[in-house]
Amino acid sequence: MPLVQITMLSGRTTEQKRKLAQRITDALVEEANARREAIVIAFHEVAKESYASGGVLLADQTQR
Amino acid sequence: MPLVQITMLSGRTTEQKRKLAQRITDALVEEANARREAIVIAFHEVAKESYASGGVLLADQTQR
Amino acid sequence: MPLVQITMLSGRTTEQKRKLAQRITDALVEEANARREAIVIAFHEVAKESYASGGVLLADQTQR
Amino acid sequence: MPLVQITMLSGRTTEQKRKLAQRITDALVEEANARREAIVIAFHEVAKESYASGGVLLADQTQR
Amino acid sequence: MPLVQITMLSGRTTEQKRKLAQRITDALVEEANARREAIVIAFHEVAKESYASGGVLLADQTQR
Amino acid sequence: MPLVQITMLSGRTTEQKRKLAQRITDALVEEANARREAIVIAFHEVAKESYASGGVLLADQTQR
Repeated sequence: MPLVQITMLSGRTTEQKRKLAQRITDALVEEANARREAIVIAFHEVAKESYASGGVLLADQTQR
Repeated sequence: MPLVQITMLSGRTTEQKRKLAQRITDALVEEANARREAIVIAFHEVAKESYASGGVLLADQTQR
Repeated sequence: MPLVQITMLSGRTTEQKRKLAQRITDALVEEANARREAIVIAFHEVAKESYASGGVLLADQTQR
Repeated sequence: MPLVQITMLSGRTTEQKRKLAQRITDALVEEANARREAIVIAFHEVAKESYASGGVLLADQTQR
Repeated sequence: MPLVQITMLSGRTTEQKRKLAQRITDALVEEANARREAIVIAFHEVAKESYASGGVLLADQTQR
Repeated sequence: MPLVQITMLSGRTTEQKRKLAQRITDALVEEANARREAIVIAFHEVAKESYASGGVLLADQTQR
């Protein structure tokens, strides 16, 4: 019954999210005996002005 | 002092969120002795391309 | 297909969580047309040393 | 730079979480071009008294 | 290795988020011995129709 | 009205969380004009078997 909440930069395509949903669900079924129908995944996409690592917004980082 | 974070498909009206906020808050006050003023609810709305169940994006499911 | 994540102080009984799960689920079905079977609720319980409001840990507040 | 927060029933072994972390990270690198070092995964484990689907605590469900 | 997820009303400027990211990261490094490079902060911004306190949407509150 | 959810390794003292709550709250008040009383912070502490970066559990990393 796992809930998976993924926070990531916006910009991924539907096809990328489709593949991620498949593979993450497969991993949970195969490695953790989760029931496939009970797995829910949500992607929360944020802009690079709303994401920081090391104290610096991604919008301000010269190299990602 | 409960914090309630609700992830759901986008598309609900303000009136629906208003009712949900009232009823969920009432439930927390009446069933869990939470102080009404301290209850915070946030709705995080995602597109059907950003939500999957059973490994399949909602955008790809023929019936919801 | 709503996911509901509730962060609250630990100490509620199973009966209290049972009632909360029922009422919050009912609210989502009746007010937001969510499918009952697709609603998932998780309670994340934290100690009063791990919860702050107004910049003060609940463990340090004289009145809650 | 994805953050992955997984809420699931407690009881999985370290080995299961190790495998999940590997496979979910691989999926994000291979499907979403995420940098491996920047992917963080946290498992939040809850008891079956703290998890409900369809309005019923998992502790009260006869079949999972 | 802290992950910080901040839910707040939309409307803050990039400069405000830049300062918040700096100061919250500094606090985690100085008070909790976290490694600076490992700290990730995400801002999840919601509209005032999607945020409630005391059971009332912020959109419906006469004074904030 | 910000909600701050911090996921970090368990092991911080109450005094460390007290200081973090103060400084993070001060930052939100001073930089984002948040009302002090409306700021809520929750610390979600996880074991190093439940936390991974770069696809490797912290429990398996030789250096942190």
